[in-house]
Amino acid sequence: MTNTESGHQSLWYDAESDTVKIIDQTRLPHELVIASLNSLQDVCIAIQSMQVRGAPLIGVTAAYGIYLALREDGSALESAIQSLAATRPTAVNLQWALQRCSDRLVSETVEQRPGAALELAQILEKEDIAVCEAIGEQGARVLQEIWQQKSATQSQLNILTHCNAGALATVDWGTALAVVYKGAAAGIPLHVWVDETRPRNQGASLTCWELGQRGISHTLVVDNAGGHLMQQGKVDLCLVGSDRTTRHGDVCNKVGTYLKALAAKDNDIPFYVALPISTIDFAIEDGHAEIPLEERDAEEVLTLTGKDESGSQQRIAIAPENTAVSNIGFDVTPSRLVTALITEKAVVPATAEGIAGLLD
Amino acid sequence: MTNTESGHQSLWYDAESDTVKIIDQTRLPHELVIASLNSLQDVCIAIQSMQVRGAPLIGVTAAYGIYLALREDGSALESAIQSLAATRPTAVNLQWALQRCSDRLVSETVEQRPGAALELAQILEKEDIAVCEAIGEQGARVLQEIWQQKSATQSQLNILTHCNAGALATVDWGTALAVVYKGAAAGIPLHVWVDETRPRNQGASLTCWELGQRGISHTLVVDNAGGHLMQQGKVDLCLVGSDRTTRHGDVCNKVGTYLKALAAKDNDIPFYVALPISTIDFAIEDGHAEIPLEERDAEEVLTLTGKDESGSQQRIAIAPENTAVSNIGFDVTPSRLVTALITEKAVVPATAEGIAGLLD
Repeated sequence: MTNTESGHQSLWYDAESDTVKIIDQTRLPHELVIASLNSLQDVCIAIQSMQVRGAPLIGVTAAYGIYLALREDGSALESAIQSLAATRPTAVNLQWALQRCSDRLVSETVEQRPGAALELAQILEKEDIAVCEAIGEQGARVLQEIWQQKSATQSQLNILTHCNAGALATVDWGTALAVVYKGAAAGIPLHVWVDETRPRNQGASLTCWELGQRGISHTLVVDNAGGHLMQQGKVDLCLVGSDRTTRHGDVCNKVGTYLKALAAKDNDIPFYVALPISTIDFAIEDGHAEIPLEERDAEEVLTLTGKDESGSQQRIAIAPENTAVSNIGFDVTPSRLVTALITEKAVVPATAEGIAGLLD
Repeated sequence: MTNTESGHQSLWYDAESDTVKIIDQTRLPHELVIASLNSLQDVCIAIQSMQVRGAPLIGVTAAYGIYLALREDGSALESAIQSLAATRPTAVNLQWALQRCSDRLVSETVEQRPGAALELAQILEKEDIAVCEAIGEQGARVLQEIWQQKSATQSQLNILTHCNAGALATVDWGTALAVVYKGAAAGIPLHVWVDETRPRNQGASLTCWELGQRGISHTLVVDNAGGHLMQQGKVDLCLVGSDRTTRHGDVCNKVGTYLKALAAKDNDIPFYVALPISTIDFAIEDGHAEIPLEERDAEEVLTLTGKDESGSQQRIAIAPENTAVSNIGFDVTPSRLVTALITEKAVVPATAEGIAGLLD
């Protein structure tokens, strides 16, 4: 993959400089800036400020954060885990990756920990790539089936996606967009409707950028438009990612996902969620009651950052000063609205039985 | 009404200068700028560029446009009607007002037309104010009923609104927000969730501004958030306006309205539409097939205008250059999702029978 102009993964380890390199996602789509992470603090800031985001990518970045912390101080495992766990509350992959670090490293000596932590982070990085590619292959078969029904009457298969569940949300390939990339590679003529995804506009800034880099036909719409597009028969399926999925199949994802799932149901359009099994939280019964939904800063709603006419990055205010804001980052889509979960192992119904089958 | 700092209606006729004055809504919320309309062309530009917007206000503005055209040339009635009718396609009030102008003026002599046109525009202006105030009174009774059920267990009544169906969308009072103002005046402790309403952000820029001016408690949210708020029990009712309603009760309104109506239904929350009877199009059977939905410029999605740190108005780009965009301004909410229509005459079910009753 990484078939972009830049040729970069979203994150990689540079052995020569012994640093972690990332695409700084707060600078896209107007500038491709590579940032270096050299300390635990750098990693915490990168996750909190969303220089890296996306459930799978956060997990791998955190594992490298453990390495950078232990490189400084081999006894800092517990405190590093606590610092990283506090950066963002909703995606379960962060906890999952930190648990793997803890399990692997706790029995090592202080001297051995840095080396073992780097090795583990590199394993998680490679696993993420392989898992995402497998999700893409599983999902491409779903697309083939739908396309076989549609190809007699239309010239392209129309997919609506929300937020960015792409290569930029993972180390490479993506989850929902891995399905798009594998489907396109299999010869299906695809077109993607991209929700802009306020307030941080990950659709407009990240999904449009990466689909453009990979030559996938796409059209940007405001988040309000998806229902209308579905009413008009312009969407063949919805395809999104997930930050945390309960063992009953409720899907926590970027706020607004639930509204699109409702519209899909109302218009008899399949609604798929693509996710690594590491995103499933088997400890949770009730997504609404038990998943902590991050509330982010009001400034994300009151202001917007983009490129001004002179080409420089500019922040503008779009509402009256001192307006009260609520800014919850995620919502929970009940399993009854989800057609199926596309995982690296299989495509399964969003039910307790379907999900339990993934553990076999 | 007009209980704002400015004390202005959205539009008024200034007899001394013989011009039409408007609040330039493209400059809100950061600046209150009064613009003068002196010609038919000024009026067409003001409607197209959305210096004035909102179905009722567009109708009254167009009537003044007829006056300004006839003041120049008393024989220009037909061409003026055509120019104004072409400015925006979706709201039916524009056609309704122009039809009233045509009916009233066609039999007048060329010499008499300007005076008769001004008189008619002033009548439409006063009618609009009275109709909106009556909508507010009808709706306030609905709020009272809901509040009686809720007041035992909560401290405020939470209303979610989309776009701006306020004083700024009419000459004064508003439609949905007239209900809010009359409800607040009746002593109900109200709180309004304001959808920002991409792409033009009428919620963030106009609804927040006018609620702030009138001291109504409100919180700004992105369009994606409403479903989550409803799932969490934080919305007691939805209340929106309409640009055109079919005689079967399908409601055409700002794009995204349909998504909120789906979420209201899914969470058993009442969904009200406040509208003047002039907004009902009795000629239309099928809202989806017959209402022309305006497609606006891609720039509205690709760029955003706001106030930069130096306080001046700035336009910024938020997506990759040359991204394809679809920008449909409206959607149609099927009547099955609408609890009732709040009109100046009565609150009626969104059914053919309910609507026919308004004609008695």
